[in-house]
Amino acid sequence: MPKILIKEQEHKIEVPILLTAVSGKIRVKNRSILNEYGAPVAVKRDGFALSNYVEWQIGYDVVKKETEKLAESSLPETEFIGANEKIKALYELSEYIWYFYKWNIISREELESVIIYLNSIQSRDLIDNNPELQIDRSHPVAKKINGFDFEYTQVKYPLLIHKFNNYEIVTEIKVTEKQYAVGTQPMLYLCFPITELKTEINLIGRTAETKEIAYFEITENNIKVFLEMLKMFGILSNNHRHDILQIINTILT
Amino acid sequence: MPKILIKEQEHKIEVPILLTAVSGKIRVKNRSILNEYGAPVAVKRDGFALSNYVEWQIGYDVVKKETEKLAESSLPETEFIGANEKIKALYELSEYIWYFYKWNIISREELESVIIYLNSIQSRDLIDNNPELQIDRSHPVAKKINGFDFEYTQVKYPLLIHKFNNYEIVTEIKVTEKQYAVGTQPMLYLCFPITELKTEINLIGRTAETKEIAYFEITENNIKVFLEMLKMFGILSNNHRHDILQIINTILT
Repeated sequence: MPKILIKEQEHKIEVPILLTAVSGKIRVKNRSILNEYGAPVAVKRDGFALSNYVEWQIGYDVVKKETEKLAESSLPETEFIGANEKIKALYELSEYIWYFYKWNIISREELESVIIYLNSIQSRDLIDNNPELQIDRSHPVAKKINGFDFEYTQVKYPLLIHKFNNYEIVTEIKVTEKQYAVGTQPMLYLCFPITELKTEINLIGRTAETKEIAYFEITENNIKVFLEMLKMFGILSNNHRHDILQIINTILT
Repeated sequence: MPKILIKEQEHKIEVPILLTAVSGKIRVKNRSILNEYGAPVAVKRDGFALSNYVEWQIGYDVVKKETEKLAESSLPETEFIGANEKIKALYELSEYIWYFYKWNIISREELESVIIYLNSIQSRDLIDNNPELQIDRSHPVAKKINGFDFEYTQVKYPLLIHKFNNYEIVTEIKVTEKQYAVGTQPMLYLCFPITELKTEINLIGRTAETKEIAYFEITENNIKVFLEMLKMFGILSNNHRHDILQIINTILT
């Protein structure tokens, strides 16, 4: 992936979005009329539609030992210690906040108020510990299907959607099982309509070029949404809160 | 992974199970007292307990072009055309059935009756098409969490559990979203207690050695369970049914 473009003069960051990625952290999806998660779109085959959006599992850090990923950060020299005791640099969300703070668009007071907010949240009120946001399973019932006897249950995952007023941006928090350990983990996704993307040729109604890249612009008009997202990351779990507090201290010093 | 051991004389197949795999198709999990999916066990750190079981996303085919995986099949020269039009060889489940048919423990009549059974199932009755086995989402409700306004929903995934009478073996069918496409896909898992594994030193109460392997024995005592599993794979979707019918024809000719 090309790096983010930092336009100092214009106070603008352009984030490259690979439109044709079928896996990875950023995907083009289609919102169904029905109430489901969106479904991935084969943009090279089926093209883009107005109902398409970008789902981005945005990050905020990179472990400095992971040199390949570190090279994607424009601030590889920044440093903080993560909750997992690994040395990390600012990346993606924290990177953007760093620039807009430097450009005096985000103020010291705004960042300090996030610190005060996060310190005010009780551990039991973090998303991770919220008893109403746990994975749930219905009581099993007997069901005969094509001659086989089954016990049928539903496994229920919480999904939280937050809409940012006056913006086309939405965050989704999905609570799922940890992949390689016991317990649950909340994952935060940023979603916005593909019409928010900058491209040379309008996307709607055409198919994607091979490895086509579009740009998402972060400016003073939407950076506050990203600051809110940083705050939201901080309430996911104790580890997330630790990391976000460290990040803000790194930005402020 | 070492290959399966085929003991012609004893009519026995020993399947190697890598106990320390943290990802992949076979994992050691712990059944919770609560009604959840099992959680992965760190067997090198925490050791084995009586409540542990093996969850195995068993396969039945290998695409012949995937030479690395093909090398894991003991029947790389077998051949059938999959529903996806790829040339495939027998692998895992279908491999085991092949040997026990050759050893006259599974009869031609038994395999033919699976063909008759699968041909009798209406397309609309396949798991994939069953309206009661779709992913469901609850109506969103407003929820304020730590000052943020969210819409809260639950996304509900069907889980079917089948117990084989008189065996310690269970199959789980999880219906999930397709990863890179629109729609749902049923996935079949085979689960059995770790006490079913053959090891030189008893597992319970000790930790796993680095890359420790145990063996699961398939004999005339439990092969009928695998034949039932083949049948069950055939009712997951049209594509699965196509493949299973091709596999049985390959075994019979």
